[in-house]
Amino acid sequence: MQNLTPAEARERFRAGLVTPTAGWCAGFTQANLIALPRDLAWDFLLFAQRNPQPCPVLDVLEPGEFGGPILDGDVRTDIPLYRIYHDGVQVAETPDAREFWRDDLVAFLVGCSFTFERALLAAGVPVRHVEEGRNVPMYRTSRRCRGAGALGGPMVVSMRPVPEHLVDTAIAVTARYPSVHGAPVHVGDPGELGIADLAAPDYGDAVTVREGEVPVFWGCGVTPQAAVVESRPSLAIAHAPGHMLITDAHDADYLVGPEPLVGAN
Amino acid sequence: MQNLTPAEARERFRAGLVTPTAGWCAGFTQANLIALPRDLAWDFLLFAQRNPQPCPVLDVLEPGEFGGPILDGDVRTDIPLYRIYHDGVQVAETPDAREFWRDDLVAFLVGCSFTFERALLAAGVPVRHVEEGRNVPMYRTSRRCRGAGALGGPMVVSMRPVPEHLVDTAIAVTARYPSVHGAPVHVGDPGELGIADLAAPDYGDAVTVREGEVPVFWGCGVTPQAAVVESRPSLAIAHAPGHMLITDAHDADYLVGPEPLVGAN
Repeated sequence: MQNLTPAEARERFRAGLVTPTAGWCAGFTQANLIALPRDLAWDFLLFAQRNPQPCPVLDVLEPGEFGGPILDGDVRTDIPLYRIYHDGVQVAETPDAREFWRDDLVAFLVGCSFTFERALLAAGVPVRHVEEGRNVPMYRTSRRCRGAGALGGPMVVSMRPVPEHLVDTAIAVTARYPSVHGAPVHVGDPGELGIADLAAPDYGDAVTVREGEVPVFWGCGVTPQAAVVESRPSLAIAHAPGHMLITDAHDADYLVGPEPLVGAN
Repeated sequence: MQNLTPAEARERFRAGLVTPTAGWCAGFTQANLIALPRDLAWDFLLFAQRNPQPCPVLDVLEPGEFGGPILDGDVRTDIPLYRIYHDGVQVAETPDAREFWRDDLVAFLVGCSFTFERALLAAGVPVRHVEEGRNVPMYRTSRRCRGAGALGGPMVVSMRPVPEHLVDTAIAVTARYPSVHGAPVHVGDPGELGIADLAAPDYGDAVTVREGEVPVFWGCGVTPQAAVVESRPSLAIAHAPGHMLITDAHDADYLVGPEPLVGAN
């Protein structure tokens, strides 16, 4: 799977394959989807601007369009699994969102931490959920996002257990990817985020935390879905957590400093 | 000036002092202002999202509010000099924007490259316009921004001459500040950006380019004003180029990787 092109992967999902996408299409950027009615689009874009760690926006599709500069595909069909919300309540989970789509929906593509996992592995930091063939564990926290208009809610985080001596490396590597959640929002104590039990994630699967490993928490692109549940828009269409949109953008496009990035002299 | 607090500096500007602000209030973040009618706010926020190098949004004030989390002040009076645009035409330059303000304006604070100049100096990279006590030179380029709704226009850039052996350093230092324009958009040839004459900037002042120095160009927060001129909204209120809003945010808040940023373990 990791050697497929994004177009090949999307074709499989369009044909009905349902699977979490961590580890798929090495080097290509994965994205969270949140599609909301046009009259909430301003509130959401502002919400994202105010909460860049959980909600870094990679692109916004034009209303009525299903692809864009980083997606030569169809956002309604090319994700393995969708969640449909009416008035903040999940009413369906489906591999094809077309029957629920409305002309006034605006689709936001939000950065995903799967993007920096290859860089973590390259730096010697293990990624447990990939090792164990599971979905990444995600948790609703007690930390509130800064609200915007009708939208508010808790921050959702993803968690990766990191050996203590590699925590600084994990921070340094991921800090260079601010567009895909960037540095951790918390290191160490789940209780400080209001997480009672690491073994019972709110989304995704639990993973093994070994002796000498520290739980490290990053902002997560499921945060918009937590805001949807709380803010109850008439319709929202999102990916199922961990089942991402694989775009045509390259992970390297989202890497910043310290190496020189421009060489046109 | 560099040792004043932001509150002290804003008080002077409120009292009528008109001056470019490069070098003021060391360590505190300066911002570009663009205030637009509510019905254009979505277009502008999307324009900024699509053009993050020239238009990195630091904060958006609530309609009807004049301060916010990074500004314990009044955005209508605390900038040294404002430019007022009606239908894309500059109709006034004034140190007090209150008589032009409207209740439906939404104020966007956009990152400014003055933020990384202290880091450049600390790394041994000279900042010529500060040395020469001038405003930074800025140029409209032939490079188009990606449009959004009613808004489109050229990218505006700022220029700093950098000794050839320090160009990589300048790139590496500024790449770590993606929220305040980040890495250069171009290094070397003004002609590639459609700039005919470095000695004739479109905004600000010309500076000396010495033998062995390379012109380095960064995205500039005057870009929204170039879009206003082209897109002709009924009203826009902006800062005069180089005459910035000095916020209470710290430059260090906008620094990313590679040093560890989180230490809560």
